[in-house]
Formats: sequence, structure tokens, C-alpha cells
Amino acid sequence: MSMSLDHVFNPKSIAMIGASASFGKWGQMIFSNIVAGGFPGKIYPVNPRERSIFGIPVYQRVQDLPEPADLAIITTPADTVLSVLEDCGQRGIKTAVVVTSGFSETGAEGRALENKLVTVCREKGIVLVGPNTMGILSIHSGLFATGAHTRPRPGSVAFISQSGNLGIQLIHWAEEQGVGVSLFAGSGNEAMVTCSDYLQYVADDFQSRIIILYLESMREGRRFFETVKQINRTKPIIVLKGGRTEAGRAASASHTGSMSGEVTVFRAACRQAGLLEAKVPSELLDLSAGFSSLPLPRGNRVGIVTLGGGWGVVTSDECNEKGLAVPALSEKIIKAIDRHLPSFWSKGNPVDLVGTRDPEAPLVAVEEMLRSDDIDAVISLGIVGRIEYLRLMNRSSKEVDKTIPPGFLEQTETLLLEYEEKYIARTAELMEQYEKPVIGVSLAKTSGGTVRPVAGRHHSSVLYETPESAVHVLAKMVEYQNFLGRE
Amino acid sequence: MSMSLDHVFNPKSIAMIGASASFGKWGQMIFSNIVAGGFPGKIYPVNPRERSIFGIPVYQRVQDLPEPADLAIITTPADTVLSVLEDCGQRGIKTAVVVTSGFSETGAEGRALENKLVTVCREKGIVLVGPNTMGILSIHSGLFATGAHTRPRPGSVAFISQSGNLGIQLIHWAEEQGVGVSLFAGSGNEAMVTCSDYLQYVADDFQSRIIILYLESMREGRRFFETVKQINRTKPIIVLKGGRTEAGRAASASHTGSMSGEVTVFRAACRQAGLLEAKVPSELLDLSAGFSSLPLPRGNRVGIVTLGGGWGVVTSDECNEKGLAVPALSEKIIKAIDRHLPSFWSKGNPVDLVGTRDPEAPLVAVEEMLRSDDIDAVISLGIVGRIEYLRLMNRSSKEVDKTIPPGFLEQTETLLLEYEEKYIARTAELMEQYEKPVIGVSLAKTSGGTVRPVAGRHHSSVLYETPESAVHVLAKMVEYQNFLGRE
Repeated sequence: MSMSLDHVFNPKSIAMIGASASFGKWGQMIFSNIVAGGFPGKIYPVNPRERSIFGIPVYQRVQDLPEPADLAIITTPADTVLSVLEDCGQRGIKTAVVVTSGFSETGAEGRALENKLVTVCREKGIVLVGPNTMGILSIHSGLFATGAHTRPRPGSVAFISQSGNLGIQLIHWAEEQGVGVSLFAGSGNEAMVTCSDYLQYVADDFQSRIIILYLESMREGRRFFETVKQINRTKPIIVLKGGRTEAGRAASASHTGSMSGEVTVFRAACRQAGLLEAKVPSELLDLSAGFSSLPLPRGNRVGIVTLGGGWGVVTSDECNEKGLAVPALSEKIIKAIDRHLPSFWSKGNPVDLVGTRDPEAPLVAVEEMLRSDDIDAVISLGIVGRIEYLRLMNRSSKEVDKTIPPGFLEQTETLLLEYEEKYIARTAELMEQYEKPVIGVSLAKTSGGTVRPVAGRHHSSVLYETPESAVHVLAKMVEYQNFLGRE
Repeated sequence: MSMSLDHVFNPKSIAMIGASASFGKWGQMIFSNIVAGGFPGKIYPVNPRERSIFGIPVYQRVQDLPEPADLAIITTPADTVLSVLEDCGQRGIKTAVVVTSGFSETGAEGRALENKLVTVCREKGIVLVGPNTMGILSIHSGLFATGAHTRPRPGSVAFISQSGNLGIQLIHWAEEQGVGVSLFAGSGNEAMVTCSDYLQYVADDFQSRIIILYLESMREGRRFFETVKQINRTKPIIVLKGGRTEAGRAASASHTGSMSGEVTVFRAACRQAGLLEAKVPSELLDLSAGFSSLPLPRGNRVGIVTLGGGWGVVTSDECNEKGLAVPALSEKIIKAIDRHLPSFWSKGNPVDLVGTRDPEAPLVAVEEMLRSDDIDAVISLGIVGRIEYLRLMNRSSKEVDKTIPPGFLEQTETLLLEYEEKYIARTAELMEQYEKPVIGVSLAKTSGGTVRPVAGRHHSSVLYETPESAVHVLAKMVEYQNFLGRE
């Protein structure tokens, strides 16, 4: 089966059936999100008991709509959805997102009702998203049709999730971390449109370059993996499989009403198809940041630059344990870095900057490693993220030292922030020049998020909070590169 | 060897040798930290070229001090430290923290100089911390003697670290996450005082109940494990071993000047001694939050309460993969919860609250599980942490709906915050009542941090951002409980 989801993600007009002004109702949460999100097309709220909501004229019945909207979003009670879909069919609406719950996830009766929805939709030629979906987002189209009002920046990561709340949370994390998003689909009960359909849509969506999947069950395993194989040589697919264990399967069966597939079979199929597996949701976020921002490493050899010895040790351990090498440095690199560090520096990998105050030292070390044929990627630790400590120190100095000239402490912060900005911009430039990833670790919560786009640059700088995130992402990128390299 | 570290962590007077007003020098960073941190004892700065720093009278020579200070903190250049220590000995100072670097970590020459320091200290009966340490903190004594001006709240976790920058970062994370700290020791080059000595001190320090160790090398393996065995039945010890891999060992050798021990031997010894191992620094933080706040679970059976099905699945998977069980619920629990949830709820574990708006439902579910003999611990997902979404929703509503009465949206936020506070307080109460841990997962960055102390309660509520953190901590607590159960 092939179907067009173009009107799901790029509608020119929307009928919001069940629109409401009643704070906290689904019809209010989604409608207010669409309006506040600035959807640029036409919006037709439908509600028999209202004349106007948020200053927008309301239609009492679907039949009254002035045109067949590209997309209907439905939040009316479960027992009304069937007739609403019939009305949609009659009015010529060909695509519907049913947010309403109370279908197959609630038991046999709900399942029977859900089957009826599908029958009507097939008869009328309606593409049915859901039911029991938390909604959809299409960032480049300005469409925010979820209950959570999160606004990730436009980008290249497509999120498809069989759990609405988990998916929405990921999107919110993406917003906080600066990960650019193309679209989000909560697939709900998948009565008609399944994960494979979303994958096929995303394959042809030029905005989407990375695909993140949260899967619990699969209706069409063979088709799914065939679809994956078509796509993931050009668009990496990262999947988190919920229900890998007995407890997880039991939990999944009870909330989606469908059994999860066999995990060992699934794993083998993933490996064969080059699907990248994640184990927890936060990993999906880290991976989406890295894959959407960094060039792929050509091998597994990592150069490490660190402001502190201990962090270099911990990061080296993580690299080795994740299958990455931390090779010794050539004489040439050592000589180049020598000029910028005290004589007793480690002369090895990691390059420990031993508290040097030479502002050039970190960038020299990073570039010398990138230039070398022995190094495929660089991890830089603690170079951006020091501002927090400077602020704390300045707070004390201000308190105890009345002789400091006015403006001096503020200036130290301005200079450090400028340095960090320059460092971020320069790493993006270096990634373009050498086509190798440079992954930053802040070791601190920074206000700027994980992904730092740099004007005019193809790649974005990336700053994880912890070395394990950086190493894990790099290891997955190497895994993907190895998959691409297979015959 | 046994030595008193009492003057390191509880000095009544400090000689700050090398104190400086020069912004960014170690002598300024540490001295301003001690002063701004409000050290309640006497402070004697020593510097031949100053009369007064921060309004405090400066002594030109150690000999001039009006009394033998309990503790000397030394930041003068490496080539002066030997004579400074001699001066200290003459003036009757018996404890010194040498922050200065440039000793064994820099090579043979530095090592020779370091050996001389030790000889002088032994002659004069001086206890030597460091050299090359980032300093110490003793929170209950109001002593903040590190270059980083972080101020964790007073509590029960002692941090001992062979890497200063890594240890300091942990302390700063502890401050951000609300973890209560008793003391921090950067052990530096351990020329005299070693990890085992710090452990012995902490064993007798009544403020310290949990011990976090970052280790790279061990000078006295047998003594270390004997010390551990004496302590860790009453005070759990959690260790991160840097240099577990070839790359990590190479990195460690270059920055500490000492080879890391054999990892397989170390691991076996850890298991035998009941030492809990962590793999990355962020884990140490998570574990310190949990062990210092929660009662120990008596077994491995977890009850899960969730606001979203997908999160329940993911958490169940994590539990099973970490050796925790997620047992089915008894008829009795199901009936009790039944009254608060829609009829089609899962009737299983996880308890999926399926978007119920009954504010009693989460607490009823948590308490019914705690009451049951079949459950040893509860993880609650997404119940605290929703305020962020409400704020986003309210922002939209404010923008699009001009008819909302003034103050209404603000009131929804106040009510939810009150609810969250009440929930946090109630879980602390329930933990006391049932002596079982309840671990919250916010699924969002919350402004309140991980540890939420509740006035008048023995235990604190704990809120991790991710389920994997909660599950991991619980699994380690079960591991510790199993160790305690071994005759």
C-alpha cells in the first residue's frame, strides 16, 4: 500500500473539528497551538456550539466548510468520530488526524469501533492518522498540531513515535538543545497509516535528513525493513525499540493493545539493515544532535584535547570501551603543539592543556589533529563551558575585593564569552575544511544548548554536557560509516 | 601509617601562604574563595610584598605569624615550596595543603623535588596534602579552599578525587543538583596523604555517610581494600576507576605520573569488598543523590507509576536489563487504584495513569504499591515536571485568547506548582512511613534540581531527569543491599 501523506505535513488549509475555547480540552490545546504557532494557511474551526473562537469564525458542521480542507484534525469524543469522518468524506476532505482516544487501546469494543473508522476511511478515500495520536508537527510548514506547545527550530531531524508522550518529550528536549527538527508524527494506534508509511514519506521529504524512530510494535515487519533498506544509505535511521524485555513487552501490550515483536529477530534485522539502535530516549536526542550537525568520521581514531587530565582519562576509557581508538601522536603533531604548551605537557593523546593560558593552544591542538591522517575525529573537553566558573569566581572577587576597578570583572566575562563564540565558529570552519567531526564537551550545563549553528557554515558545532555522550555519538557515527562501507 | 586529617577539614586558623590580590592567580582564587565562603576561623595571609589583601592584614613571613595556624595552604611557586614547608615546621604548623604543581607529574626532576618535600614534612611532623591538588572543601566547617567557587549545600556525601578538575566538576554538579556535600579532597600527587588516609578520616567523620571516589592509581592496594572493608558496611563507597582501558591507562600515566593498577584484579577486589563501581562521572552524581536521600530497597521488585505509556515501557525495559523485576500487581492493589482511574486502565505494572485528571490518582497508586509486600521500590514518571508544559500552553493561550479572565492562567501555574510541592513532600513522608524508596523522574529539566529536601523529613525526595538514571541508581542500591545481606 502506498499513500500520500503530503496533506498531513504540508496542508494549505485545516479543519479543526472539535475546536474549543475551553482551557485544557484537547480541542483547545491543539487549536491554540496551531493558531499561536502561526500556521500560514487557512484554519476552519468546527464546533456546533460556537460562533467564534480566538476571533476566528467557527463552522457549525463539516458540511458548512467553504472548501474541502486539505487536512482535518479531529478531537471530538470517540463515539462521534465515525460520523465526523463520514462528514469529512462527503465534504471531500481526504486526510484526517484523529487525536481522540478510546479505540483499540481500550479493549475489544474500542477495537471494533476503530475497525469501523478504517472501513469508512477506505470507502471515502481518506488517509487516517491515528486514532489516539498526540498529533503532528511540520516545522518548515509552520504547523504545530500537538497538545504540547513546544517550538523546536526548523532543521533536518524527523521524529516518528509510537508513543505520543515520549515523542513529544523528545521534541521538547530537541527544542531545549537546539536540535533542528523537520517533522514529528505521533503514529497513535496506526489503524491505517503505519511507521513504514511515515518512513516512505520522510524518504522523499527533502527537509528531512535524519530519522528518529520510537517503536513498540510492528504490523508489517518485512515491509518495514525493506523500507528501511531503501532509505538509510542516504538518511540514517536511529531506532529505540520499546518492549525489549519481558517487563517492557508486558507494559507495551497493555498500553498500545498490540504485542511487541521478538527482540532477537528484531536486533538481527536491524544490524543487517544498518538500522542504528538506541537504548534510552536521551540517547536518541544526543544522536539526533550529532548526526544532524557533524560530518561523518571516516574511521574510529579519536584525538582528544582536554583542559584537565582526569577528563582525558575518563574519555579515553569510554572510547576504548565503545570500540574507538585513541592513537599515539606523530612527532609532527607533537612539535606543532609544543610551541603552545609548557615543556612538560603529556606529548601524547589526549593532549592535556595543563591549564595553559595561551588562548591559541586549544585550537592549535584541534587543528593539528584534524590535519593528521592518523586521526578521524576530535573530542574537545572543557574548552567551552568555563564561563560558569568565571562567574562564580567574579562573584567572590566582587564581594571581597573593593579595589577592583569598575567594569574589570564584567570585561573578563565578555572576553571569555567572545573567546567561546570564536572557538565554536572556528570548529565549524575546521569541520568544513577537513570534513572530520569535532565534538565539544562542556562538562557544564550551558545556556546555549547542544547544537550551535554557525552562520554561513554547513556543519554546526556540537557541545555535549558529558564525555560519554560525545563518545557514544561518535561510536554510532563510526558504526553507520562502517555500514555504508559494506560492499 | 595513621595520621590525623582533622586540621585539614576542621582548622580553627589558616595560613594562606602565597595569598594574592592579583586576579586569576591561584593565591587569589583560593584566598578569595576562603574569604567569600565565610570561613569562621582566623585567616593569616602570607606574602612578602603585600601589607593587606581584601582588607585583611598580611604577614610577610611565616615566622611572623602570631600563632602556629592549624592549616597552611600553599600556592607559592614550586621552587619555593620546600623552604615554605621548612618555615611552617619551624613555626609549629603541622598540616599543609600544597596546591602548587610542578612536581612528580612533570617528570624525574619534579619527582626528586617532591621527595624532598616529603622528607622535610616527615622530619617536621607535617601532614602533607598534595602537592598538585586543586584544594579541599569542608562544607560543615565553612571552608572553601579550591580555585572553583562552587558552594554545594551541607550534607552527607564525601568526595575524594585523584583528579582535581574532575572532582571539582562533580562538586559543581552536586551544587546544581542539590546534593548535600560534607567534604571534598583533591588528593593531587598523594606524596604523603593517600586515598586510604582520606577514607579512614571519612570513616570517623560523623557528617559523612556516603563516599564517592575517583581513582586512577593506588599506592597501597591491600591497605586500600582493607580500609574499604572496614567502612562500607556502614558508609557505602562508590568508585569510578579511571584507566580501565589501554587508552585510559596511557592517559592516566601521562598526567599523574603513576601507572594505574590492573583492572581485572581491581574489579574482582571491588566485588569482594562490596565497593560499588561507576563507569562515568555523571553516574557518581546520580548515585550520590540517591544514596544520600533514599532508604535502601529491601529487594529488587519495582512498581512503576507513569503519566505516559511509552515511558512506562522504556522504564520497564531498563529495569529488566539492570536486573530489577517489575512484578504483576495483586488484585488488592488493582482494586484500590481502580477507584481513581478510567475503567480501561492497564490494571498492571506499570500503572499508566492514562491522562487522568484526578489529582489523587498518582499518590494513591504510589502508596498502594509501597503498602504491598510484593514491591520494594517505586519509580514515578512525569508526575512532577509538568509545569514546563503548562507554561508553554499558557503562553499560547495568552497570545490567542483575549477572553481569558486576568490572573486565570497564572493561577493554573500556581496550583500545579503547589500540587508538585505537595507531591514531593508526600513522597518523602511515604518513604519514612514504609522505609522504601520512591524515585521520581521529571522527564524535564526542572529548576529545583535532583534532590528535594523536605522540612522535618529524614529522607529527601529525588527527581532524576531520565528513567535510566532512576533505574540505574535503584539497581546499585539493590547491589549494595545484597552486599550487606552477605553474612
